[in-house]
Amino acid sequence: MESISGGLTLIPVGHVSSPLKDRASAPKQGTEGAPEAWLVFEPSYHAALEGLRAGDRIIVLTWLHRASRDVLRTRPRDDPRNPETGVFATRSPDRPNPVGLHPVEVLQVVGRRVRVSGLEALDGTPVVDVKPVLPGDAGS
Amino acid sequence: MESISGGLTLIPVGHVSSPLKDRASAPKQGTEGAPEAWLVFEPSYHAALEGLRAGDRIIVLTWLHRASRDVLRTRPRDDPRNPETGVFATRSPDRPNPVGLHPVEVLQVVGRRVRVSGLEALDGTPVVDVKPVLPGDAGS
Repeated sequence: MESISGGLTLIPVGHVSSPLKDRASAPKQGTEGAPEAWLVFEPSYHAALEGLRAGDRIIVLTWLHRASRDVLRTRPRDDPRNPETGVFATRSPDRPNPVGLHPVEVLQVVGRRVRVSGLEALDGTPVVDVKPVLPGDAGS
Repeated sequence: MESISGGLTLIPVGHVSSPLKDRASAPKQGTEGAPEAWLVFEPSYHAALEGLRAGDRIIVLTWLHRASRDVLRTRPRDDPRNPETGVFATRSPDRPNPVGLHPVEVLQVVGRRVRVSGLEALDGTPVVDVKPVLPGDAGS
């Protein structure tokens, strides 16, 4: 197995196509009324989708390109009543590495387009990975 | 909120300190007998840990630095009886963006070192993010 040389650089493998156009209108989590969205993959990554089917629970990793990377502490859910908390104890998009983690259900696979359930990522957000949900992911 | 300019470059915020030294000896998932490990954070990210406590369920994102990035299809669990499957339908570390997703429990926080339950990542693996587990993460 080869080691990776060089930096830790993510390659967008696709992007989100969604009616959500700005952060103000996006729900904070996908379970809070986020709309369905399409994941549109680049042609060169089509083969990596093989075996993905409607009904699968997946975790989509995105690059939250509108986030701020220099935030280390925040008030959860932007609520001033919440105490300032380290971003590693929150799901704020603002964090040193703004990788979004979105558990969704696959609704439809059409070629290299995948329709998914409630996704709070904005239109145009780069997709960097997709993984199937495992039973241990929510903690057992 | 500022946009991020430039590429999608991850910054290591810490690293894994673990008795696991090579891929051959590592279990495939943390729930399969992986040992406890320490997450050792860089001093500049100490503030981001504020609020993290023993008993918290977290998701650790790592950069799987020993993985191969040019693999698009694989046989799950390296088992020749399994059909070739797109890597987005597997949890193989070999994938275009080798970001590891590890659900673990916080066992202890000592300064900027965090001891966690069963973690299958190798010693020295860069840590890129930590997020609290939310109820929706395993799919509801």
